[in-house]
Amino acid sequence: MAFDPDQLDALAAVVHEGSFDAAAQRLHVTPSAVSQRVKALEQQVGRVLVLRTRPCRPTEDGEVLVRLAGQIDVLGRDALGQLVPSPGSSRPVPSAAAMRRLPVAVNDDSMSTWFPEALADLPADVLLDLRREDQDLSADLLRDGTVMAAVTADPRAVQGCRVRRLGAMRYLAVASPERKAQWFGGGLRAEAFAAAPLLAFNREDGLQERFVAAAVGRRSAAPLVHYVPSQGAFVRLIEAGIGWGMVPAAAATDALARGTLVELRAGRHLDVPLYWQHWALRTPTLDDLTDRVVRAAAAALRPVAPHGPAPRRASE
Amino acid sequence: MAFDPDQLDALAAVVHEGSFDAAAQRLHVTPSAVSQRVKALEQQVGRVLVLRTRPCRPTEDGEVLVRLAGQIDVLGRDALGQLVPSPGSSRPVPSAAAMRRLPVAVNDDSMSTWFPEALADLPADVLLDLRREDQDLSADLLRDGTVMAAVTADPRAVQGCRVRRLGAMRYLAVASPERKAQWFGGGLRAEAFAAAPLLAFNREDGLQERFVAAAVGRRSAAPLVHYVPSQGAFVRLIEAGIGWGMVPAAAATDALARGTLVELRAGRHLDVPLYWQHWALRTPTLDDLTDRVVRAAAAALRPVAPHGPAPRRASE
Repeated sequence: MAFDPDQLDALAAVVHEGSFDAAAQRLHVTPSAVSQRVKALEQQVGRVLVLRTRPCRPTEDGEVLVRLAGQIDVLGRDALGQLVPSPGSSRPVPSAAAMRRLPVAVNDDSMSTWFPEALADLPADVLLDLRREDQDLSADLLRDGTVMAAVTADPRAVQGCRVRRLGAMRYLAVASPERKAQWFGGGLRAEAFAAAPLLAFNREDGLQERFVAAAVGRRSAAPLVHYVPSQGAFVRLIEAGIGWGMVPAAAATDALARGTLVELRAGRHLDVPLYWQHWALRTPTLDDLTDRVVRAAAAALRPVAPHGPAPRRASE
Repeated sequence: MAFDPDQLDALAAVVHEGSFDAAAQRLHVTPSAVSQRVKALEQQVGRVLVLRTRPCRPTEDGEVLVRLAGQIDVLGRDALGQLVPSPGSSRPVPSAAAMRRLPVAVNDDSMSTWFPEALADLPADVLLDLRREDQDLSADLLRDGTVMAAVTADPRAVQGCRVRRLGAMRYLAVASPERKAQWFGGGLRAEAFAAAPLLAFNREDGLQERFVAAAVGRRSAAPLVHYVPSQGAFVRLIEAGIGWGMVPAAAATDALARGTLVELRAGRHLDVPLYWQHWALRTPTLDDLTDRVVRAAAAALRPVAPHGPAPRRASE
C-alpha cells in the first residue's frame, strides 16, 4: 500500500504541533486542507489515526504512520545528500529544507555531561533537535516519531526500535563537609537519613531513595525532599548545604577537588546503565549518529557486562 | 461560604496528579472517596470544577479553588511554625508534614545562574519544590495553584497574583573564534546570518532571531536552527563550533576568558527583563521568599528603569 506523502506529513504535523490549526500554519496550507488529508488517510487505512483532543493525540495506529512519516523524511534527506552535484553547480547556501534533522531525546544528566562530545564535530548539513527526556518519556517520543533515537535509563525496547547498552553513569552521594558532619557524623544510619533533607531532580528521580535503601537495607519513610530540576542548581544548592543528593561523578569532580562537596562514603555509589534506543532503520544519518554516540559513551561512561542481566540501577 | 478542606485537597490532588486514581493514592483514600469529595464541592458551588479528561484539567472555576487550596495549605503551615512550643517539649525530628513547601517556577537561565543564590541560606523547615518554566508556562502553574511564585520573562500579571520587576538578564551573542571569522568575517550582515547555523534553547526561544532583527534591521528568513534545551550543552556546542547563540553573560564569563567563545560584536547584546510573579497573599513564607529573591536579583541582574515602559526584551 502506497501512502500519500502529503497526507502523512499532515498527520505528523497535527501530532507534533498539537492541533490542526498549528499544523496548517507549519505546512503553509489551510486547516481544512490538513483536515481533508488526515481524513483521506484515515479512510485509506480504515482506522481513526488521531484523537481530536487538545492537544491532538495519535491513536496506536496513528503512531505507526507518524513514525513512518518521520522515517520517510530522513530517508529522503539522506538520498538528497547523496545525489551527485550537477557539473558546474556552485556549492549552494545551506537552506533549512536541504538540512538533515536529528531529533533525539537525551536524559538530562547525559545532556549536561558527556552527550555534547558526541556532537562536537557534526557534519555541516545536520541540524540538532534535542529534547530533554524529563519533559516527556522518551518511549512516547520514539513511538510517535517525534525523535529517531534516545539516550535513556529505560532498557525496554520500544516497538519498531533497537536498543543497545552504552555504559553506566556513576553517581556519587555528596553533601557539603559541614552537613556531612552534622547529619552523618554517626554514620550512614536510618535515623540520620530520616532527618537529613535530600535533593531530588524531580518526582521521577528515585536515585536518592535507592542509595538509602542500599545503605541501610530498607526504604526510608517519608524523607524530606527538595525538588531541583537543573543540574547546575542541584550541585550549587548541595554546596550551600540545603541537603545531600546523588550527582554524576563527572559533574561533581570540580566541587570535590575544591572541597565544597564530599562523598557521604567513598566507594559507595550507584552505577546507572544507559541505553541507546533508535528506530530499526538503516540510514546513513542514523548510522553515523549511532557511531558518534557509542564512541562518546565508551570514552565517558563505565563499561557494563555485555551479556549479564540488565538491572536498571546497579550498586556496589 | 466555608469550604471543606478535605474537598479542596481532593480537587487539588486530582489537578496536580492528573487523575482520580493518582489523587487517591497520594491522599491515601479510595478513588471513590476522591470522586465524592470533588462532586460535593461541585454541587456546593454549582459549577463543574474539573474536566474528566486524561490528564484531568481544572475549569476556570476549578483553578480558583485549587489556588485557594494551596493558599490555605501555606497559611496553615505558617501558623503551625508560629505556634509557641509547649514548655519542656524537645525539638522534634523534622517531618515532611511539618515542613513548609516552596513551589516556585523558575525560567531555565535563572535556575542555571543567579537563582540558587537566593536559596542558599534557607530556613531549615522549608522544602524547595522548583519547576522549570520551559516545561510548562508559569502562568498556568500560578493560575492552577501548582506554584505560589515564578521567575519569568512574562510581565503579564496572572489573575490573583502580583508582579514586580527583578532586573534584566544580559545575553551576549557568541561563537567560537574560528566560526566568527568564517561566518562573520564580513560583519553582521543579513547574508551572513542566513548562512550561519544558530542554537536556540527550544521552539519558544526567540532571542537569536531578535538579535538578528536588531543587527540587520529585519527578520531573517528560515534560519538554520539547532535546538539544544540545556544551558551546559548549549555553551559547549557553541564552543565546538556547531553554531552561534545567545548566552547569559554570567554563563559565558569563563569561556570568554579562556577564549573558547568570542562575542559576535562587543557592546551589542540583549537585556531581558525578568519578573517575580506571586500570589497576592501576605504570609511569612512568601514574604521571606520574595525578600530573598529580590536581594539575589539585585546583586546579579542589571537594574531596569522602574517607571519606564516594560518591553519584553530591550536591545542596545
